[in-house]
Amino acid sequence: MPRTLNQEVRSRLISAGLKIVHEHGFNGCGVQEITAAAGIPKGSFYNYFLTKDAFAVELLESYWSSLSTAFSPILENTQLEPVARVELFFRALSREHQAQEFALGCLLGTLALELSSRSPAVRNKVSDLLERWAQPLAACLGEAQERGTLSEGLNASDLAAVLIEAWEGAAMRGKVLRSDMPYRRFESFLLRQMLK
Amino acid sequence: MPRTLNQEVRSRLISAGLKIVHEHGFNGCGVQEITAAAGIPKGSFYNYFLTKDAFAVELLESYWSSLSTAFSPILENTQLEPVARVELFFRALSREHQAQEFALGCLLGTLALELSSRSPAVRNKVSDLLERWAQPLAACLGEAQERGTLSEGLNASDLAAVLIEAWEGAAMRGKVLRSDMPYRRFESFLLRQMLK
Repeated sequence: MPRTLNQEVRSRLISAGLKIVHEHGFNGCGVQEITAAAGIPKGSFYNYFLTKDAFAVELLESYWSSLSTAFSPILENTQLEPVARVELFFRALSREHQAQEFALGCLLGTLALELSSRSPAVRNKVSDLLERWAQPLAACLGEAQERGTLSEGLNASDLAAVLIEAWEGAAMRGKVLRSDMPYRRFESFLLRQMLK
Repeated sequence: MPRTLNQEVRSRLISAGLKIVHEHGFNGCGVQEITAAAGIPKGSFYNYFLTKDAFAVELLESYWSSLSTAFSPILENTQLEPVARVELFFRALSREHQAQEFALGCLLGTLALELSSRSPAVRNKVSDLLERWAQPLAACLGEAQERGTLSEGLNASDLAAVLIEAWEGAAMRGKVLRSDMPYRRFESFLLRQMLK
């Protein structure tokens, strides 16, 4: 099978998987549902992914890479004050959830809670992605501290981590309520107080 | 069947379900696994619960009621300053996760993310429990504001809600890392800054 075909089928499986797994959860859908949506025979799935868990790891990478490509540049936009960039960055992430009317939440949180207790590969992947999420955020917060627009009393890396975790909690509540209210409350309330 | 027997079998199903569902997720286990652990025939399950989703709702109620009975009194302990009560309350919740070496996280978060997109009954139950979680917390925060030990700039109900959501995010990270570090970071960093 030529490599180009491999890549194209692999991509189709990942696109179909992102949609179905995000909506139904990992254990809430089978390989057959994913292969059917991708238009390939079920047996071919394991030519591309050794296990269903290995597929989850690739879904997570694809999910976060695409968000990061779209939104991390906001944190590096030197035309804006660093604190304003952080606010815009979280707003952009929230808007992404609006496209599904807040019904799906964040795939990292969903797969982390569903699979961490049994899948070391998924745990390691989520852990890695949360670190990669925090790095440009911490850099931006550090820049705000250097410019004197953010208190130096808080370590920028810890601050980035707690903001991400708090946002994940808000996204969980948003999924429960199917509402942007928890995201707005995160932005107008928690974020403002933490960025004083 | 006498009512006492009904209640006893029902309790056994809920105890078995709490353990199995918390570890494997809702879709990661079947009714048979739960009935086998409870020592009852599979067919009897539906004498007690109309659907597996209705069972999830009862698991959530049982899970939160038992935590609330154990820990909400901390928030009403007038021998302590209100802010100290809030800190002790979250520490007590975190210690509860330590018993499973931080491998399981919070059942509310897990079922919220796994089932919200398809089960209105689970969404409504999680929403209700998050409100019930917030009420005594908001009352305690309001008391701190009346005593002047907490800024009045933040609405106590909003503050209670964002603290719970941030704690849920920390618990998610704790489950990924199997570590108390995110809980400690929540306590020493986010909570302190939010309770200024």
